[in-house]
Amino acid sequence: MQIRVYYEDTDLGGIVYHANYLKFCERARSELFFEKGLIPLDGNRSFVVTKIEANFLGSANLADMLSVTTKVLQTKRLSITLLQEVYKDETKIFSAIIKLAYLDNGKPIIIPQNQLDILKGDN
Amino acid sequence: MQIRVYYEDTDLGGIVYHANYLKFCERARSELFFEKGLIPLDGNRSFVVTKIEANFLGSANLADMLSVTTKVLQTKRLSITLLQEVYKDETKIFSAIIKLAYLDNGKPIIIPQNQLDILKGDN
Amino acid sequence: MQIRVYYEDTDLGGIVYHANYLKFCERARSELFFEKGLIPLDGNRSFVVTKIEANFLGSANLADMLSVTTKVLQTKRLSITLLQEVYKDETKIFSAIIKLAYLDNGKPIIIPQNQLDILKGDN
Amino acid sequence: MQIRVYYEDTDLGGIVYHANYLKFCERARSELFFEKGLIPLDGNRSFVVTKIEANFLGSANLADMLSVTTKVLQTKRLSITLLQEVYKDETKIFSAIIKLAYLDNGKPIIIPQNQLDILKGDN
Repeated sequence: MQIRVYYEDTDLGGIVYHANYLKFCERARSELFFEKGLIPLDGNRSFVVTKIEANFLGSANLADMLSVTTKVLQTKRLSITLLQEVYKDETKIFSAIIKLAYLDNGKPIIIPQNQLDILKGDN
Repeated sequence: MQIRVYYEDTDLGGIVYHANYLKFCERARSELFFEKGLIPLDGNRSFVVTKIEANFLGSANLADMLSVTTKVLQTKRLSITLLQEVYKDETKIFSAIIKLAYLDNGKPIIIPQNQLDILKGDN
Repeated sequence: MQIRVYYEDTDLGGIVYHANYLKFCERARSELFFEKGLIPLDGNRSFVVTKIEANFLGSANLADMLSVTTKVLQTKRLSITLLQEVYKDETKIFSAIIKLAYLDNGKPIIIPQNQLDILKGDN
Repeated sequence: MQIRVYYEDTDLGGIVYHANYLKFCERARSELFFEKGLIPLDGNRSFVVTKIEANFLGSANLADMLSVTTKVLQTKRLSITLLQEVYKDETKIFSAIIKLAYLDNGKPIIIPQNQLDILKGDN
């Protein structure tokens, strides 16, 4: 997944505002759903981020094209843990381990297999 | 209503990103509801912006304290038009005429008097 | 220019937050520069928005693919006026007349011809 | 530090978008500078986030008043580690360990004592 850096993504330091990397990761997760003609929301059910361990390794500037990779690290009944990384050309500039729960009306439930499969990039 | 300029509000030009002035105006409208212990959402009903005429007259920097003024220009059955202005100290840096409709489940309805009164700053 | 609607673009009304249409227009203007291998910033010089007349004609939801069109309405020595419109499929959902000035270190200067040409989509 | 939740902070799930908690923490760090009449930027020098371990423990809605606490966990020559937490009334809804480096023109340098003192809330 390719992401262009626009004015709105930068701050007065001239580079991408740090919290925006989490947006880029969320975009990449959503694209996994969009690719299947789905949205990451099934009625009152959706994934939510419960934990993030993020390392900011580099910076990005206006006009940069970034790419986001997504890899499943672990799946449990009530959570799935992803490794999401942002690259500028060949350089890794952001890396995060992101744990998601699946909520139904705000309460965690067992993650349905079809939802897991989407995040795994499977059919 | 006072608004502090944070990193997130700026862009690489070093000043407040232009679209954020619309956020500041929306915050000021929302505060009129919050002051009454209400939210600007009544079930499926809420105001939506239908038209904006905005003039960008100056700029704002990190740490600036801005103030937003709100004045009703016109009320009709299906719309209310506000003048919202952003000041940095005594200097007007943004001015917008903002027209709102009131939607029920996405369809415009006659604006309830109590909702009008809130935007007018009346009881 | 195609724009995907992500979670971050929506608000609790379930649709794209109104101020974000201005971001989408700015992205489209920036892409005109990126296409030429340039950025919309030349040292201390850049375009800034001075006036916007915007009409919000429809709404957009998560996963929607939007397209933004840009057309030059008028060029003067110190300003250029664009018509930018956002479409969801064939439906126009946002239309704005956007006036830009060209600033050098914060002061308006005559817009260089090469900068005008970029916004016009010319060589 | 008190933070009001506005429309712009929410997403279509009806609650605060997860990445925005990092913005709230950044606002709280910036306020420590503003309180002293300073900004978190000293020429080409500023703090940057290098690592975040965040736990999302609850949710926040439109109109909620949140408070952010900031506590220094550890200081080293090249980094300072903070614990920042977001509360909704008495309930902790977000907690993050945030590591900052101090950059001069993009390169890490020893954090000046006066900058450390600001984040510590000292004179």
